[in-house]
Amino acid sequence: MKREKIKDLLLSPAPGDAILAMGWVKTRRDSKDFSFIELNDGSCLSNLQVIADHSLKNFDVIRTITTGSSIKVHGILSLSKGAGQKYEVQAKEIEILDPAPDTFPLQKKRHTDEFLRSIAHLRSRTNKYSAVFRIRSELSFAIHQFFNDRGFFYIHTPIITGSDCEGAGEMFRVSTLNPHEPMKPDDSGKLNFSEDFFGKEAKLTVSGQLSAEMLALGLGDVYTFGPTFRAENSNTSRHMAEFWMLEPEMAFCDLQGNMDMAQALMKSLTRHILEKCSEDMDLFFKFVDTGLKATLENLLASEFIRLPYGEAVSILQKQANKFEFPVEFGKDLQSEHERFLAESHFKKPVIVFDYPKTIKPFYMRVNDDHQTVAAMDILVPGIGEIIGGSQREERLPVLLSRMEEMGLNQKDYWWYIDSRRFGSVPHSGFGLGFERMMMFLTGIRNIRDVIPFPRTPKSLEF
Amino acid sequence: MKREKIKDLLLSPAPGDAILAMGWVKTRRDSKDFSFIELNDGSCLSNLQVIADHSLKNFDVIRTITTGSSIKVHGILSLSKGAGQKYEVQAKEIEILDPAPDTFPLQKKRHTDEFLRSIAHLRSRTNKYSAVFRIRSELSFAIHQFFNDRGFFYIHTPIITGSDCEGAGEMFRVSTLNPHEPMKPDDSGKLNFSEDFFGKEAKLTVSGQLSAEMLALGLGDVYTFGPTFRAENSNTSRHMAEFWMLEPEMAFCDLQGNMDMAQALMKSLTRHILEKCSEDMDLFFKFVDTGLKATLENLLASEFIRLPYGEAVSILQKQANKFEFPVEFGKDLQSEHERFLAESHFKKPVIVFDYPKTIKPFYMRVNDDHQTVAAMDILVPGIGEIIGGSQREERLPVLLSRMEEMGLNQKDYWWYIDSRRFGSVPHSGFGLGFERMMMFLTGIRNIRDVIPFPRTPKSLEF
Repeated sequence: MKREKIKDLLLSPAPGDAILAMGWVKTRRDSKDFSFIELNDGSCLSNLQVIADHSLKNFDVIRTITTGSSIKVHGILSLSKGAGQKYEVQAKEIEILDPAPDTFPLQKKRHTDEFLRSIAHLRSRTNKYSAVFRIRSELSFAIHQFFNDRGFFYIHTPIITGSDCEGAGEMFRVSTLNPHEPMKPDDSGKLNFSEDFFGKEAKLTVSGQLSAEMLALGLGDVYTFGPTFRAENSNTSRHMAEFWMLEPEMAFCDLQGNMDMAQALMKSLTRHILEKCSEDMDLFFKFVDTGLKATLENLLASEFIRLPYGEAVSILQKQANKFEFPVEFGKDLQSEHERFLAESHFKKPVIVFDYPKTIKPFYMRVNDDHQTVAAMDILVPGIGEIIGGSQREERLPVLLSRMEEMGLNQKDYWWYIDSRRFGSVPHSGFGLGFERMMMFLTGIRNIRDVIPFPRTPKSLEF
Repeated sequence: MKREKIKDLLLSPAPGDAILAMGWVKTRRDSKDFSFIELNDGSCLSNLQVIADHSLKNFDVIRTITTGSSIKVHGILSLSKGAGQKYEVQAKEIEILDPAPDTFPLQKKRHTDEFLRSIAHLRSRTNKYSAVFRIRSELSFAIHQFFNDRGFFYIHTPIITGSDCEGAGEMFRVSTLNPHEPMKPDDSGKLNFSEDFFGKEAKLTVSGQLSAEMLALGLGDVYTFGPTFRAENSNTSRHMAEFWMLEPEMAFCDLQGNMDMAQALMKSLTRHILEKCSEDMDLFFKFVDTGLKATLENLLASEFIRLPYGEAVSILQKQANKFEFPVEFGKDLQSEHERFLAESHFKKPVIVFDYPKTIKPFYMRVNDDHQTVAAMDILVPGIGEIIGGSQREERLPVLLSRMEEMGLNQKDYWWYIDSRRFGSVPHSGFGLGFERMMMFLTGIRNIRDVIPFPRTPKSLEF
């Protein structure tokens, strides 16, 4: 007999079938002649109620089954008399696969997120985290479906890189050299990587963008979705050393098209999750953030505000006393400023664009004012910046002069520069922090709690 | 006016529309009153033929357009008189976005794969590589669709890891320590990682399996699909330092179920690519491997052979004179042996199972004979091993004694062992080398040519 998943059993068209279910016991309670077992197999949030009556040959053993034990149940799917759900199972045979001892940490009581992080290998056995991981899976799928439907090609950009990309942040070094021995300098006194695996200094990528641009300039519309890294020693609730980033890159696309695509993506992903994960989402609406449902529905209903950086600064300067950090044209917006705009001032997502070129990387397209670049950031309530992007500088002479301005070595970027020599075209792209999107959708406020095994400073367990 | 992709234009229901196309010029040829431009935008293999006649105001300039230049074409979609394809475009206006100089390396002639690897940033501008990358994208999507349809959850397992997993291969170290300085030993003379980013030795993962098991034991069916790393200094056509791996992991699943799933996956992916990428696949059938189509159709039509390792050894020993390496019970099969079984002996995919435990990792389930483990490898013609998997050892005492046998430190695997304490269940999984699958589907025989930017020893460009 084939095992069926609880999700499928609960969607059965009619009762009466003989079924086989397997899973883990959430709780057991007993009456005189019956035991009631709540069984979960991870396929959905709902448990399957299993009813064992005293006629079962191992009824005595069944009445000792502990929370966390794994069991196998043959029985008949029946209409439930209780209020909860449609079906329950009248057990014909229950086999204990592996009894859990009393030391199983997930007894029926509330646990703190901090405690659960210390047993991250067991988090998927809880309601909250199994819901998080199911939503995370569906959100990934929604991303692939969104772009596949629109004729984008999914590309895998390298994780190990020889260039320091855009100076987006501190980088991890990757090496096979013996850490016991100091590196020998070469003849010119510089570090000598010739004996290292790649024969040169290697690092973990901070962004797949520069590589993605190369492919967009041949394939048209592409996106990369993979792990990225920051070696920043900051222990905040919004940063991790390893996280996933989605980066679409579009040939023949300007900043307006970029904003249009980013808005369409945000709405499509939100709608997808509300539709496909409604049972799991209800948990977050009820227990994590009671304002969450309204926030998400508001996003679906709104046209995002499009606000030049200069105007954003004016708005913020009028509220200067509200902020810890000063607001000044030419300075980057802080998280508190971003959240003020999205949460308090506009009460909906805001796209800030045309940032001063001095605070943005070399590859962003210089506007006609020569002071700003065609950059855009999307700010959402509760999170702040969730998307950052730009139109790219496609004009070779402008690109080269920007690189010189910023002290970058052309030799390190020969292939990137090359792409502007042979049929350069306008193109644009953006990056969406996948975990930020998960936080936005679930209302969870610590980024460590939306990824199975978080990597942060001094923390590398599991 | 909105730009349309060439793929969509060529699928238009009827001619007559005014259209806007953009792309790169593949070739231009001239007659007295006309210029014919083959335009490609990466959306599909086919070019759009653009016809410019002498009435266009910049006709003289059009007749100088070089291969590789980017252009913008307004025109009328018309039925093509030529044999090639259904539509062509009568240009009303052609704007050169950026002319390519004669130094553009991809002039119309055959280039070697070696040369193209040296300009990997431009490879997506060629027919062959744009086809590879479109297929790669669709294959990724097919994977997600296959598992999403079957109720699997996509999980992201960590890239940076503190455990050396399964000893699957040499690992890269990840660090933020200053490479100028030798590491200081701690009091006991060991390396002292306390000042490194994670406070302990960190490496790049060789497999997401152990993490995936943790999530399968809560969510049921999961898969991880992401980059994995091997720091092996071997320059072969089948190995890279960075590659993508798909690893499904299924709770309540034994070795037979594992084989069933792997076979269903291989067939489904192959069918998906034949259906969705037929134009691109024709290129590989014609120009890369004339036997490829038959190989793929043979896979779709066959039940995979299921062959115990012991029987595989007997078959191979009868052919010992054919092989460079000896065949002996207790030794791993070499690539030449694997290919002989799939290509010459059975002429179809072969699943070899029940390998000697001495050559397999600690986590594979020990069979009742105490000599073999419930492992399985899938061998396919042209490639050899493409999938490796096993039922996992779910019995705590057996797992612990296997770890001791193999000299593993229990402390390093406390969380893995923990998962066998609290409601352990039978479970199985396997790994599919994504680039190996790409090679199988395209007939390409150098793994560097199925990924945009390959990472191999002493090679870290782009």
